[in-house]
Amino acid sequence: MKTVVLVYSGGLDTSVCIPMMREDYGFEKVVTVTIDLGQPAEDIEEAAQRARAMNTEHYTVDAKDEFACDFVFASLKANGDYEGYPLSTAIGRPLISLKAVEIAKKLKADAFCHGCTGKGNDQFRIEFIMRTLMPGAEIIAPMREKNLTRVEEIEYAKRKGIPITVSLDKIWSIDENMWGRSIEGGRLEEPGFAPPEEIYKWTADPRKAPDEPQEVEIGFDGGVPVSVDGQNMKPVELIGHMNKLAGKHGVGRIDMMEDRLLGLKVRENYECPAAVALLTAHRALETFVCTRDELAFKAMVDRKWGEMAYAGLWLDPLKEDLEAFIGKIQERVTGTVRMRFFKGSTIVTGRKSDFAIYSESLASFDTKEFDQRDSLGIVKTHGMQQKFYHRLRVEGRE
Amino acid sequence: MKTVVLVYSGGLDTSVCIPMMREDYGFEKVVTVTIDLGQPAEDIEEAAQRARAMNTEHYTVDAKDEFACDFVFASLKANGDYEGYPLSTAIGRPLISLKAVEIAKKLKADAFCHGCTGKGNDQFRIEFIMRTLMPGAEIIAPMREKNLTRVEEIEYAKRKGIPITVSLDKIWSIDENMWGRSIEGGRLEEPGFAPPEEIYKWTADPRKAPDEPQEVEIGFDGGVPVSVDGQNMKPVELIGHMNKLAGKHGVGRIDMMEDRLLGLKVRENYECPAAVALLTAHRALETFVCTRDELAFKAMVDRKWGEMAYAGLWLDPLKEDLEAFIGKIQERVTGTVRMRFFKGSTIVTGRKSDFAIYSESLASFDTKEFDQRDSLGIVKTHGMQQKFYHRLRVEGRE
Amino acid sequence: MKTVVLVYSGGLDTSVCIPMMREDYGFEKVVTVTIDLGQPAEDIEEAAQRARAMNTEHYTVDAKDEFACDFVFASLKANGDYEGYPLSTAIGRPLISLKAVEIAKKLKADAFCHGCTGKGNDQFRIEFIMRTLMPGAEIIAPMREKNLTRVEEIEYAKRKGIPITVSLDKIWSIDENMWGRSIEGGRLEEPGFAPPEEIYKWTADPRKAPDEPQEVEIGFDGGVPVSVDGQNMKPVELIGHMNKLAGKHGVGRIDMMEDRLLGLKVRENYECPAAVALLTAHRALETFVCTRDELAFKAMVDRKWGEMAYAGLWLDPLKEDLEAFIGKIQERVTGTVRMRFFKGSTIVTGRKSDFAIYSESLASFDTKEFDQRDSLGIVKTHGMQQKFYHRLRVEGRE
Amino acid sequence: MKTVVLVYSGGLDTSVCIPMMREDYGFEKVVTVTIDLGQPAEDIEEAAQRARAMNTEHYTVDAKDEFACDFVFASLKANGDYEGYPLSTAIGRPLISLKAVEIAKKLKADAFCHGCTGKGNDQFRIEFIMRTLMPGAEIIAPMREKNLTRVEEIEYAKRKGIPITVSLDKIWSIDENMWGRSIEGGRLEEPGFAPPEEIYKWTADPRKAPDEPQEVEIGFDGGVPVSVDGQNMKPVELIGHMNKLAGKHGVGRIDMMEDRLLGLKVRENYECPAAVALLTAHRALETFVCTRDELAFKAMVDRKWGEMAYAGLWLDPLKEDLEAFIGKIQERVTGTVRMRFFKGSTIVTGRKSDFAIYSESLASFDTKEFDQRDSLGIVKTHGMQQKFYHRLRVEGRE
Repeated sequence: MKTVVLVYSGGLDTSVCIPMMREDYGFEKVVTVTIDLGQPAEDIEEAAQRARAMNTEHYTVDAKDEFACDFVFASLKANGDYEGYPLSTAIGRPLISLKAVEIAKKLKADAFCHGCTGKGNDQFRIEFIMRTLMPGAEIIAPMREKNLTRVEEIEYAKRKGIPITVSLDKIWSIDENMWGRSIEGGRLEEPGFAPPEEIYKWTADPRKAPDEPQEVEIGFDGGVPVSVDGQNMKPVELIGHMNKLAGKHGVGRIDMMEDRLLGLKVRENYECPAAVALLTAHRALETFVCTRDELAFKAMVDRKWGEMAYAGLWLDPLKEDLEAFIGKIQERVTGTVRMRFFKGSTIVTGRKSDFAIYSESLASFDTKEFDQRDSLGIVKTHGMQQKFYHRLRVEGRE
Repeated sequence: MKTVVLVYSGGLDTSVCIPMMREDYGFEKVVTVTIDLGQPAEDIEEAAQRARAMNTEHYTVDAKDEFACDFVFASLKANGDYEGYPLSTAIGRPLISLKAVEIAKKLKADAFCHGCTGKGNDQFRIEFIMRTLMPGAEIIAPMREKNLTRVEEIEYAKRKGIPITVSLDKIWSIDENMWGRSIEGGRLEEPGFAPPEEIYKWTADPRKAPDEPQEVEIGFDGGVPVSVDGQNMKPVELIGHMNKLAGKHGVGRIDMMEDRLLGLKVRENYECPAAVALLTAHRALETFVCTRDELAFKAMVDRKWGEMAYAGLWLDPLKEDLEAFIGKIQERVTGTVRMRFFKGSTIVTGRKSDFAIYSESLASFDTKEFDQRDSLGIVKTHGMQQKFYHRLRVEGRE
Repeated sequence: MKTVVLVYSGGLDTSVCIPMMREDYGFEKVVTVTIDLGQPAEDIEEAAQRARAMNTEHYTVDAKDEFACDFVFASLKANGDYEGYPLSTAIGRPLISLKAVEIAKKLKADAFCHGCTGKGNDQFRIEFIMRTLMPGAEIIAPMREKNLTRVEEIEYAKRKGIPITVSLDKIWSIDENMWGRSIEGGRLEEPGFAPPEEIYKWTADPRKAPDEPQEVEIGFDGGVPVSVDGQNMKPVELIGHMNKLAGKHGVGRIDMMEDRLLGLKVRENYECPAAVALLTAHRALETFVCTRDELAFKAMVDRKWGEMAYAGLWLDPLKEDLEAFIGKIQERVTGTVRMRFFKGSTIVTGRKSDFAIYSESLASFDTKEFDQRDSLGIVKTHGMQQKFYHRLRVEGRE
Repeated sequence: MKTVVLVYSGGLDTSVCIPMMREDYGFEKVVTVTIDLGQPAEDIEEAAQRARAMNTEHYTVDAKDEFACDFVFASLKANGDYEGYPLSTAIGRPLISLKAVEIAKKLKADAFCHGCTGKGNDQFRIEFIMRTLMPGAEIIAPMREKNLTRVEEIEYAKRKGIPITVSLDKIWSIDENMWGRSIEGGRLEEPGFAPPEEIYKWTADPRKAPDEPQEVEIGFDGGVPVSVDGQNMKPVELIGHMNKLAGKHGVGRIDMMEDRLLGLKVRENYECPAAVALLTAHRALETFVCTRDELAFKAMVDRKWGEMAYAGLWLDPLKEDLEAFIGKIQERVTGTVRMRFFKGSTIVTGRKSDFAIYSESLASFDTKEFDQRDSLGIVKTHGMQQKFYHRLRVEGRE
């Protein structure tokens, strides 16, 4: 039986794919797959109901733990960032695709279908995994191929009796997983348009946030957060807790310009309280336990990791190499960081670690061992070649 | 007449150097030089009075314009930062030293004297310029050579009748120029000690800052700020204005770990409202007018520039090379950035530029020219080598 | 009159394009353009004859001087290299395309045609310039669109009476300009197949090269070579001279693996005596006049420049930024380098420059100024943070 | 009993240290340690005899296997190079120092003594290990402290009856281990002086090398060489074999400018046939099995590793991090490389590996899967932002 696995969100774009797969592409069996990465439970439930209404073989996969441990925390260790964007949707796509592949392999499916357009980043992230792990399977992207307008899609949905309630004036295009929300579209595309309050769902308006700052202490072990204010938490729980805590204080709104994979520069808005808070804490702990040279080099490693994660190259060998580097450092990223949330801002107010390159005993060791006069030779030779250079310039001039 | 030029702040350390130069080092003429980089006018006046009282030949040099244009703005173009510290004291030292050298050359002085200890960064910054531009002159650093305690210094000052009023319980060590204040010492050295409100002078406590956000629009021309809210300002005036505006909203407090030149990791606190605001705006404008590749590469160039500026290598040929790169980009860093200050935070809410890689006309050009189906080949070849790699691994395993 | 400008080499691929443009694509006027970058004069003449025989409006553009000065020497300043390949074809393509655009603009042409396939790098290099400078013009690449086999092409040429003499057993695909030859195809695609002697045209078999080494002294001024053995030469002449001199000694054969733009790894063979000799000399002079930090950073700048030049992004703003950096350094890359050619190898045996960071007078200055005991403090603090790190590990273990 | 451990080579500098330690520094027990890293057996034997004659407690440590496996091969994996110098002395020093520390710990020694001057690199490499692993022990460097001339040293040696035969006209300063020889001093310090034939000991004069090229096939497993021409060899044996083979053909002479740790630029000559041959082979294999992105990033990692190894920071945590990255890649650096030695040159003529990103089956897979027309979209979007940039410039101009 000719089978297609459809990555299914329950929305309009992927719902119209169902009759299309049957009628236009001739698949006898349409399998719908919805992956739970921490988006709202209603969305997941709604997707399942619609799929059932349309008679697909439907799978809901709870990948929250895997996402938190192997994707979100991998990103945290790399201070996961692309041009100021704390990678969230970007790192969710590969897992969605991996789960779809697992099911497709089990069902010996012939093809995949997804709802990405031909302009964005997600087609790259989704298809890279599919093409890599099931190179023989066909991949169908109807939105990219058919170039339908929203109006045409809605009409098609009506004709096919698709049980979907959409309005023509849907303004924002939103994607969401536990590590963040991305909001695009409408007037947000204008770089000079200040984002309206209504686009935010997880964060308080800083003006209406509590008038008292809140201090919180994050405990890290081996580069990943394990406790909040002394209380141990599992990854999914901890991330959820931080989203609430930081969000309450208006922390986590990001408004930026971003360079998409195809080379288009666009304006993007993100809302990611836990990500902003935990990334700030993680970086602060690294500056405490790493040497200067490690910090400088890891900045380059992290940047490269971020570029690859943004591109969705999750199975890239270079990514594995970089993670070997990153992982070696994380062995020492253990300790606690105290932060203060207040009216939209996050400030680090203290750090503690047994692995700190700094410590009082070392500082006093330094005092004993270090005779200030020893600096003389260091200062004299500081910039020695630069002095030669200058002498040449001066002599050349004269 | 054996002459020494003393870099003079008017404080205890440099005041005790005056009799020392005469009595211990045998200089017949002691010249004191105080450079105005925008520190408090009282400090500069006090230094002049003390110098007069101690019968030195005193020079006060107003270098504010030169500092703003050639040092602060050079740093801004490079997004001047070292491990999170917006370089301020670090870029002031070379100019102080350059001015001291100018005077020393005019007076045909034999030696320099400065008050830096043997543990910090400033000895490197000050002496590099002196050794480079007057390689024949002796350099004397009594604090480094004599290792005096504060108590011993005060006693020495009393014995010598130095007109100075110091208390033994001076807690914080502070340095200040128009681009920022640095506050060190006392319990601030403990990485887990939250900085007390009293160390701040330019910034409001965010809790007590205005309850209404303030929007401000910075105009840039060729990488440097030229106007605020549409009103043109000269560099020194603009920086002063931004210090007040951003400071009023509690913007500009930095609490961090920092790796000193000698390799010691220390805790540092900075207060630099204008620097935080203008650096944020400058970066935002660069993300608007630069290509993705330029942004990624300039991040490396800026980092290197910051390391060299932190080290005080102001005459380094590599610094000149990097500035040629940076300067080429700045030609296009022209436009305006709108920011919002509120309770300690700075957010960019809009950008405009004729040089934006983004623009509505380009976006629509893109729509016309770009057929979504063209993406297919791009997506197919995305990560092509990575797919090969994976195939090898799989085939190897089987 | 509907006009197409064809980038014309005179070979089979571009010759079959002529009737195609007329018959299949409906152009009334076919303009052929051949750009002289120093390839054999017979090839250029042959192209002109064939074009005339096929009644096109033909242009031969002598771009040798421009190529040497603005492309080859720009590459030399950047130590122009991609994975070991001294960029030659890669930097020729943009100039060919620029000249074609000049003519197309003058003639108000509607379209371009070129003979590149859809697998290689040249389509990117050629079209980037055309699309950038004449975004409205159509670009036709028949080889890419039609996927013709060589046999089909020859039959088509016969049918159309194209005056071309090709054999079916043409083995190597060759491209040539004054900076190098590239040889591909046939068994050379096998990474384990040793290249046969017959593929080389400019270099002697090292085994048959002269039994006596030859010394040669290259004079540089501002980063570009200006004399050989004391005799001033113009760029084109100097490059030609070096091709003969180094080639006589078997210098300049390169056999390597290369990663193409589309991600395919291929085996490539190059023959480029002047390029190997002059790049070696230029690098040697840079190590003499640049500081250690400049050498380390320029290595990154050069690598990026090489990647962009390989990709044909000749008008890239980042390329201009990098060239500002590179150009600043070249101001001092003035002096002479003595080399020895022998049986395929090039060795630097001496360097001289007024801008050397090294010089005997500086060395003696060093001796006077530098007291060995000054090293003590430097040695003591060498790796200070690393010592802290080790102490922590040891204490942690105990 | 007050004990000092002297790193002993048997030469003049370290021999005069023995009576000095007893007479000037008051040590009751002088322990001499000579580490065998593959230098000539006579040197090691001579050192032992002299030590016995001078009544020290002498240890000869055979560290050849450890050096080959843990130092030379670690360097090979990182393509170990500093500015063109295949690190040899640089990586030998840390092991010498580690072995001295082992003995000092066993004997509970109070101090170390070494013969390095205050101008070179070795003091940093030797002392870093000692200070890190035995921070309490004193370190004495008489050559640095006393600034003796060669004549004074010889007279001192005579007075003390040191059994040493040295001439005043010793010209070259030589260091040697199995991975290379370094030759300095005398007229070699002049950058324009061609090195005389007499300084070479391991390599034939290329002019007198065999008239027939020799092909050799190196087998690698996990980044390290394990066989030559199909015959398995242990590390020390293989390195020795390659020194002879490549040396016979004049391969491995290096003449370069080098930037020392203290900032002095010097001329250096090296002779290292095995290193040049094996590094060439290792690099060639990496270009075969690594992706383009891996090659580009590893170049930066290798450069950093080389800088740290040159600086002797063998216990640096960043070095461990980089080695985690390097090690991950080496898992696939398995295969064979065929090279040709001839009259001083080394050329790679073939590569084979099961992990090649290239392979004939993949190439044919490529042909099937890759439709040339898919390139169209890729070519169209190539340099998209650069096209925007150019349009702005043009529009701005008009």
